[in-house]
Amino acid sequence: MNSNRYCVIMCGGVGSRFWPFSKAARPKQFIDFFGTGRSLLQMAFDRLQGIVPTENIILLTNESYGSLIKEQLPELSSSQILMEPARRNTAPCIAWAAHHIQAINPEALMMVAPSDHLIINEEKFKRSAINAFNFIETRDALVTMGIKPTRPETGYGYIQVGEPVEGNFSKVKTFTEKPDEDLARVFLKSGEFFWNSGMFFWSAGSIIKALDNCAPEVNAVFEQGREYFGTDQEVEYINANFQACPSISIDFAVMEKAPNVYVETVEFGWNDLGTWRSLYDHSPKNSEGNVTQQCKALMFNSHNNIVAVKGDKLVVASGLEGYIVADVDDALLIVPLDEEQKIKTYVNEVKSKFGDKFL
Amino acid sequence: MNSNRYCVIMCGGVGSRFWPFSKAARPKQFIDFFGTGRSLLQMAFDRLQGIVPTENIILLTNESYGSLIKEQLPELSSSQILMEPARRNTAPCIAWAAHHIQAINPEALMMVAPSDHLIINEEKFKRSAINAFNFIETRDALVTMGIKPTRPETGYGYIQVGEPVEGNFSKVKTFTEKPDEDLARVFLKSGEFFWNSGMFFWSAGSIIKALDNCAPEVNAVFEQGREYFGTDQEVEYINANFQACPSISIDFAVMEKAPNVYVETVEFGWNDLGTWRSLYDHSPKNSEGNVTQQCKALMFNSHNNIVAVKGDKLVVASGLEGYIVADVDDALLIVPLDEEQKIKTYVNEVKSKFGDKFL
Repeated sequence: MNSNRYCVIMCGGVGSRFWPFSKAARPKQFIDFFGTGRSLLQMAFDRLQGIVPTENIILLTNESYGSLIKEQLPELSSSQILMEPARRNTAPCIAWAAHHIQAINPEALMMVAPSDHLIINEEKFKRSAINAFNFIETRDALVTMGIKPTRPETGYGYIQVGEPVEGNFSKVKTFTEKPDEDLARVFLKSGEFFWNSGMFFWSAGSIIKALDNCAPEVNAVFEQGREYFGTDQEVEYINANFQACPSISIDFAVMEKAPNVYVETVEFGWNDLGTWRSLYDHSPKNSEGNVTQQCKALMFNSHNNIVAVKGDKLVVASGLEGYIVADVDDALLIVPLDEEQKIKTYVNEVKSKFGDKFL
Repeated sequence: MNSNRYCVIMCGGVGSRFWPFSKAARPKQFIDFFGTGRSLLQMAFDRLQGIVPTENIILLTNESYGSLIKEQLPELSSSQILMEPARRNTAPCIAWAAHHIQAINPEALMMVAPSDHLIINEEKFKRSAINAFNFIETRDALVTMGIKPTRPETGYGYIQVGEPVEGNFSKVKTFTEKPDEDLARVFLKSGEFFWNSGMFFWSAGSIIKALDNCAPEVNAVFEQGREYFGTDQEVEYINANFQACPSISIDFAVMEKAPNVYVETVEFGWNDLGTWRSLYDHSPKNSEGNVTQQCKALMFNSHNNIVAVKGDKLVVASGLEGYIVADVDDALLIVPLDEEQKIKTYVNEVKSKFGDKFL
């Protein structure tokens, strides 16, 4: 394996749309959602085997999750875990990773991967990732993976492909916001639009240059600390300066502005697991369409529900159609799957009424 | 207070229709259902003040609940708690109590009261109970309390009143099974039918004579041990012989057969709390018709539900109309209130699948 190839796994998210199954103290990436014995993060780590050397995997997380990561991925050394002292969205986080990796290896090529996605066909994923690394090896290119859509999904952003370059790589024409259903149908039919996966490939040098051009206020925070990266003083510098970054996503800060943005169109069975619906769609169902995962559940006259209950608990339900039933320790959620976009609102209501107690 | 007056509180039931809130280890009579600080049993005990002397209150229970009773009613001495070594329905249980009390006081008059009913107007209840004691003082009479119905309830048995005797006392014409809804409406309209409350008054001598006539196979078990009642050997005798009794209700064994059965028609706001619906009906509701008792519950777009959750747990629900949500430790029940008659079936299903683990 090419020792210049790195992967940054981002695993600092809170996953509040999966409350209460995903809570601040143990967000969804740390949960074994599918009962496979591996959490989403562990699955994200596992599928990098054969793409980058294990010692080139960097985890970017919130400082509260350091010990969870060490517990779940004991293969990692402490130096592979970067802990943000504050939440500042993806651009500052990627900027730090790029400066950190460049200080270690000025030739570094980086993949950026979320920790909470589901990928079905790992072989296809591996080939696509290796192709992307090969593509950026010889180019000053910012590559994003665009997933071939399989349904008129309104929960994702889309990428419109432009001029083809080689193989599955094209220039990006536009990034779009989440479409309404009519527009999503047009996107699907056109064949020109792909789901924005949040997986990126670039050299450390290319992304730092792009940040400097497109989001200098972010890049400056790290540029000013250049002498500390890769040294014992890096953490101290970050702790003192990271909070000064504006909170901004890498899509908004760079991808929608830079001239050298490419998309690799891919197809490997992908889901961002952003919602209960997506978890439902990707989980095995019984003959009544219920997803009960590892739970003990007796469902009478009930169809198309997803039941997620922690521990050795029994659920007996009747007359439920299309509900989420999620029960974890001190919180129970019973909400129609159709309403899952409102869960964030409900969680805010919980916060305003009870503070952080149940979050 | 008349020292010949006794009350037997029956509190050996399992309350499986309230599963999982009521479990075998702590059935509903031991639960503070209304958040008043007193369990149903404690409320049943409290309302006897002024009717019978405290030392004349006898609790009849299953042997597994002895310590729960001592904990909830520390005023009682151990000799006031009779523990059945087996479940044999109400007739054997009442027969034992009658023989026990008669051995202590041959002149004893007995009231028999369930431990899990709700009575709203305790003053009216007290007057009705005292009237019943006065009625049986001079008569060989078996008196049952008949509650004036307020709705066409299909969950109760009814008593049809016959020839009036004095005050609110009449002979009983018939006992009926639970009617269907059409018949219940006819009953309600007629004014002749009253709910069978399961509260009885008789002298120990009268009920023993009636048992001897109507259910000799039950009475014989106790008659043969006459010399042991009221002595140190009573418990030993019961433990050796109680199981030989057939399992039969006092209604079926005696009340439907004896010639000297009377009904006192009463009206004091009564509910047998046999079902979630009855608990719902008798609990305070918020403006959306939800009963959430002591629980922390955020209910969105949800109406006419009853939420019963143990401990400091938060429930967030949306889109629920007319459901029971009951959560206790290792079990969660979500069932429409309309289906509550099926809960027993569901609990049987739980038993057949998981044994006694969740019961």
